[in-house]
Amino acid sequence: MTEKTEQKQKDGRRLRGDNTRALTVSHALQMASIDGLEGLSIAKLATALGTAKSTVHAAFGSKETLQVAVIDETTRLLFKLVVSPSLKADSGMARLVAVGDAWMSYLESDIFEGGCVLSSASLEMDGRSGAARDAIAKAMTDWMNTLSRFVADAISNGEIAETHEPEQLAFELNAIGMAANWHHQLLGGEETFHMARLSWKKTLESHKRQN
Amino acid sequence: MTEKTEQKQKDGRRLRGDNTRALTVSHALQMASIDGLEGLSIAKLATALGTAKSTVHAAFGSKETLQVAVIDETTRLLFKLVVSPSLKADSGMARLVAVGDAWMSYLESDIFEGGCVLSSASLEMDGRSGAARDAIAKAMTDWMNTLSRFVADAISNGEIAETHEPEQLAFELNAIGMAANWHHQLLGGEETFHMARLSWKKTLESHKRQN
Repeated sequence: MTEKTEQKQKDGRRLRGDNTRALTVSHALQMASIDGLEGLSIAKLATALGTAKSTVHAAFGSKETLQVAVIDETTRLLFKLVVSPSLKADSGMARLVAVGDAWMSYLESDIFEGGCVLSSASLEMDGRSGAARDAIAKAMTDWMNTLSRFVADAISNGEIAETHEPEQLAFELNAIGMAANWHHQLLGGEETFHMARLSWKKTLESHKRQN
Repeated sequence: MTEKTEQKQKDGRRLRGDNTRALTVSHALQMASIDGLEGLSIAKLATALGTAKSTVHAAFGSKETLQVAVIDETTRLLFKLVVSPSLKADSGMARLVAVGDAWMSYLESDIFEGGCVLSSASLEMDGRSGAARDAIAKAMTDWMNTLSRFVADAISNGEIAETHEPEQLAFELNAIGMAANWHHQLLGGEETFHMARLSWKKTLESHKRQN
């Protein structure tokens, strides 16, 4: 076998491996959305994918590795579908409005069958220790820091009053989205996202710098 | 055996039964606070209590009955430690301030080792069906209705503007407490309850009727 052919075969295997991994993570994500991160099981996942348990095991090794992969993928989706689109808006107040819009649409779209995995996983994991908890804490810290940075930009622009630390408004805005996800998933009702969007708007207004 | 003695024995058995049940639920509550409602197990609980699996099984019958008992007990605690004290304040704005104070103190006191069970259980159960999900949905509906009623009283008093439905402010207030619990449990930090209390105060102020 020439070196080139060997490399091609290796690339092919890696590609198939990557595809299996991506497909498995995407299935695991929906499963975690319904049953929680603890409800994830390599055996159940293999059955759902119609593959051998050993194949899933080979790709992830342990349940914890699988949990971390699900957290990483959910974080990637949050940043791709919520944070990235908001970067197209001007920094400051416009971006705070945009990130709220994008976040509400994301939660409302039911992209996850059983609701936002980061929300439920962070409450599920908060009383424990280990790699999955560390991954979720890091993801949520990144998210809170992103919101705080957007607020800090609006303060620099003179659009938001400097009365409080950026973290205060970030806390308030994050609370609205988390409550919207919770309300929507548990209690349903058409009013949820109407209330959440109004709440986002009012919260931004209440922090506006008065000239 | 006289009828009286027989009755005494029956009462004794019931009392012991009630005590076992109460002790088991209180242990199960802490376990659910850390491992989630799905993490509850009659076997693990029996080990923790140093009793036979059959004793716990006799008291609850199934894991679902145990989950419902834990939800009911947590709801009782929420109403006893948060809602009841606030009823001592005058209805209206004073009661809205009082219920916020009581709720923050309750969450801050770490009465649950792994955070508020109702918060985590409602996100854990939202994608499922069954008696446990129904119990948590009912508990949270009662809680939201309580907050809405307190807001409605403040509107009747002319203290809160009538611009929005009472449910809007109830949604915003609930969001603050849920986020405080989440932030405290996952990310820690001394600032959490300071931010949450300030947020509660500012939210009430922003709804005040302007004369």
